[in-house]
Amino acid sequence: MIAPNDEKRSIKKISRRDMLKLTGIGAAGAAIGASGLGGVMKAMGYDVSEPVADSTTASNKANFYGKHQSGITTPVQTNIYFASLDVLFSTKNDLQELFKQWTPLVVRLMNGELMVDLTTNTRIPTGDTGEAVGLDASNLTITIGAGPSLFDKLSIQHLKPAELEDLPHFPKDQLQKEFTGGDLCIQACADDPQVAFHAVRNLVRAASGKVQIKWSQAGFNSFPAGGGTPLNLFAFKDGTVNPAITDEKDLNKVVWVDKGWLKGGTYLVARKIQMHLETWDRTSLKDQEATFGRYRDSGAPFGKTKEFDDFDVEAKDSNGDYIMPDTSHVHLARKSGARILRRSYSYASGVMSNTGAHDAGLIFISFQKDPAQFTTVQNSLGRLDKMNEYVTHRGSAVFACFPGVQKGSYLGEALFNAL
Amino acid sequence: MIAPNDEKRSIKKISRRDMLKLTGIGAAGAAIGASGLGGVMKAMGYDVSEPVADSTTASNKANFYGKHQSGITTPVQTNIYFASLDVLFSTKNDLQELFKQWTPLVVRLMNGELMVDLTTNTRIPTGDTGEAVGLDASNLTITIGAGPSLFDKLSIQHLKPAELEDLPHFPKDQLQKEFTGGDLCIQACADDPQVAFHAVRNLVRAASGKVQIKWSQAGFNSFPAGGGTPLNLFAFKDGTVNPAITDEKDLNKVVWVDKGWLKGGTYLVARKIQMHLETWDRTSLKDQEATFGRYRDSGAPFGKTKEFDDFDVEAKDSNGDYIMPDTSHVHLARKSGARILRRSYSYASGVMSNTGAHDAGLIFISFQKDPAQFTTVQNSLGRLDKMNEYVTHRGSAVFACFPGVQKGSYLGEALFNAL
Repeated sequence: MIAPNDEKRSIKKISRRDMLKLTGIGAAGAAIGASGLGGVMKAMGYDVSEPVADSTTASNKANFYGKHQSGITTPVQTNIYFASLDVLFSTKNDLQELFKQWTPLVVRLMNGELMVDLTTNTRIPTGDTGEAVGLDASNLTITIGAGPSLFDKLSIQHLKPAELEDLPHFPKDQLQKEFTGGDLCIQACADDPQVAFHAVRNLVRAASGKVQIKWSQAGFNSFPAGGGTPLNLFAFKDGTVNPAITDEKDLNKVVWVDKGWLKGGTYLVARKIQMHLETWDRTSLKDQEATFGRYRDSGAPFGKTKEFDDFDVEAKDSNGDYIMPDTSHVHLARKSGARILRRSYSYASGVMSNTGAHDAGLIFISFQKDPAQFTTVQNSLGRLDKMNEYVTHRGSAVFACFPGVQKGSYLGEALFNAL
Repeated sequence: MIAPNDEKRSIKKISRRDMLKLTGIGAAGAAIGASGLGGVMKAMGYDVSEPVADSTTASNKANFYGKHQSGITTPVQTNIYFASLDVLFSTKNDLQELFKQWTPLVVRLMNGELMVDLTTNTRIPTGDTGEAVGLDASNLTITIGAGPSLFDKLSIQHLKPAELEDLPHFPKDQLQKEFTGGDLCIQACADDPQVAFHAVRNLVRAASGKVQIKWSQAGFNSFPAGGGTPLNLFAFKDGTVNPAITDEKDLNKVVWVDKGWLKGGTYLVARKIQMHLETWDRTSLKDQEATFGRYRDSGAPFGKTKEFDDFDVEAKDSNGDYIMPDTSHVHLARKSGARILRRSYSYASGVMSNTGAHDAGLIFISFQKDPAQFTTVQNSLGRLDKMNEYVTHRGSAVFACFPGVQKGSYLGEALFNAL
């Protein structure tokens, strides 16, 4: 987008942490915040052109370039800001331009650098909304995907993977339009809520007039200081039965698409699941545990003692009863035979104004090589799942998450090269 | 509430961190999560009675007991969960019972200990909703206050301080009923969102049938790793002109009430302020800074170079123009002559479903010895404040925050002793 410039390439990039120091330097002389910061920085040897590489010096940084996008097999962060977008354009070329524009910005964001206005590189004070200044990269990951509706809007139905269809209606769904669907998604995860929000805000701002947010949801995970699986708001460990994020062979079976322009990508399913905490909190621990099929405190499956103990879903006791109740969430999910990579966050968004009940729950996110894996699990849960008494699905969306980007390329290039 | 028991007093209390270890011990033998954990813990020497003292061993702990409630002059944490409650009872005795019940629970929560069901001490697995197990005290503070409506509901108008009145309507207010008012408030602040939410959830649960949440709001602050004032979502430092939280003499002038049953307490004003980020982001930095009357990056007031530099609001330049524009937020606030202690948090709650614009902003919280201090500032801002273009006040409430509690006493005792 910006012509190569050898002079610029040899100078430093400005991180958000450096920005604070710069401000201190400037403030000691004159109020540089008021004007001309870009010039001051350039004179001081800071690069104000777009970054092209993952920073090798930033702390708490996840890498952008690679076979797969970040935020899928990256260790789970403490915060998410998930945004589902509508596109306001109608051609594939527009999308390509957008992704070429976004690519260097995403690298910058993940480096913990300031955004730069793409139309000119001398407007840094207005090129970044600035609320992340002083915060480091915070392990920010950005994961971008395309919903089924995008392919219709751009009249490129022939490029829509057969697997990418809106999820079917599930028996207990009470979906609300304002939390459902979307042409594109941006999943921003970070170890700081302001860094995650800043990333979405700035990507959407850079695409002003091209996209608008359809719905979004902030969420959090709190990690026990001693390590271990975080607890959801039902106080049960969430994410125990996941493929190991380091087992590429297993991930190839469960997560990564192996064909077409989506090769190296995956499908993201997002479900906004309200958890009825008041009902749950009136339920005895025994019933809560029978609902999951796991003991709350240890996380062990029924009949076992440790969280990661494997179990035979068909095992019965001496009375001929299932050890793990056949209406339990874990029993039914396991019985489906399907596997997914869960990467969920809790939310607490106030109360339902009519009842005063908590509007809290799970922004459930799973990755799989085919959305049918999620559908299979959800259909197995169906009407039987004891969990149905305690949760209501309020939102739903599915996105094809693009493959990773190689240096010199840009997000989604394989899609645009496809005929 | 529970009869003294010397045997219990001599044994240990269980922290949420210990709980994790216990689970490990139990899991090695039998699945103790399923039943009888209370008994197991008692047998192991853990105290399952209510705590009566601030823990001296918990890490990252704020103290409950003292002259003032916590969460007012405590260093600002990263997260808030603010809840405004309606009471479902109608007598002063009910309130007294509630506060006697809440007091030991608040101590426990702030110690990072498990809640205990007050009706029996053998039901720990169900006495705490459990989602904070493994998390430490996280500097949790709990601040409880009474709204004007409480005194009417309990027919104790004669005890309502003259200063405690609903805030007047301000010119640009667009208040929504679902974010306004309340009989009681619980401000839970912590360095972990799940710890803050857990505290409100468990206090409300313990008071089931006695209170219900009218409205609530989660918020966050992100602190630059190098220290300094956190930035709000307009990327400006928020909270610069505050009394020093260690200057008791100044706090006596600004924050602490010095008469009646509220002596040692203060008034909390909460305002849910939507910030129109898209409008702000289209505004030049120069105009943004003229809106505040401060430089964004340094935080210095116009004409000065450092954040904490003092300034003369009436100072003019050689043209006779105010150095700090007389429509700027800081100019008008300073000119009011009133001072308050601000302790605000940002929020990002998704988008407005009709426009796709961010539903984000500030859960503004200030403490003052008289709500009139806030009203004076807000009236000075009035219709002149340039900031009005960028913000909309959506919610509002005022509460009289009780004095601190001495060991052996309970929350609000002075109110109940008043005639």
